[in-house]
Amino acid sequence: MRFYRPILLLFCCTITALATHAQKAKQSPELQIRAVLDRQVAAWNAGNLEAFMEGYWHSAELTFFSGDRIYSGWEAMLERYRKTYQAEGQEMGNLEFSDLKIELLGPGNALVRGRWKLTMSGGKQPGGLYTLIFRQMKNGWKIVHDHTSSKG
Amino acid sequence: MRFYRPILLLFCCTITALATHAQKAKQSPELQIRAVLDRQVAAWNAGNLEAFMEGYWHSAELTFFSGDRIYSGWEAMLERYRKTYQAEGQEMGNLEFSDLKIELLGPGNALVRGRWKLTMSGGKQPGGLYTLIFRQMKNGWKIVHDHTSSKG
Repeated sequence: MRFYRPILLLFCCTITALATHAQKAKQSPELQIRAVLDRQVAAWNAGNLEAFMEGYWHSAELTFFSGDRIYSGWEAMLERYRKTYQAEGQEMGNLEFSDLKIELLGPGNALVRGRWKLTMSGGKQPGGLYTLIFRQMKNGWKIVHDHTSSKG
Repeated sequence: MRFYRPILLLFCCTITALATHAQKAKQSPELQIRAVLDRQVAAWNAGNLEAFMEGYWHSAELTFFSGDRIYSGWEAMLERYRKTYQAEGQEMGNLEFSDLKIELLGPGNALVRGRWKLTMSGGKQPGGLYTLIFRQMKNGWKIVHDHTSSKG
């Protein structure tokens, strides 16, 4: 009997892996995009900027618009987040998204509109709007363009 | 001979109309979108807000994001423009677009990124960035979502 145990274990692992894969593939693009955003919020609130940035296309062609400034590329964007939220005297605060609207634009592209709000330790609540363009990549849905604005 | 004149005129008009239509259909989506933006700039600089608004989808589903405010629908957007640029003591200024990037997102949808600048009579130059989603409608390419931001 003990000779069969490893084979049985391997069999069970394979079945579980296949089931997980099938479940993920079955998820609608909207649910997959929603999951990326949920992971971003969780990462931000855990103070993990690198994990937050996993939602973005790791490319020099990624664009981030904020106010009247254009940041081009994943590295420039991470750098901007580090300076704004992790520098001396700064804090990341607690992030919330609301009024989310996910709309597919043909296969492989999606428009996401929403509202963001940060709650800082002192009680301040900066917030505003975002427009995201998501694209389906080999490694999942990624943001290829982000336009963020806040109270004027 | 004079009986043929109206027929000849009709024939010429038809040929011209067909040629114009064929030329328009031949234009790439990028050129057609560029033409919409050029017409918007010309309309703005002629002080004609209604003509400027022709670039937008005439629908309650049109969305306009500015700062932290959401305007839903064509009428709300026109109203906002009227209050901001045509009310007592306001002026429209001279509009310029630059850094234009037009990218097709599958057939019938396009992402447009760019920079806007107004030059006011007193010399002030408010400006910022925009992200537009264009969609191909029966009556041409129209903006279905506009996210605009300015210096923070």
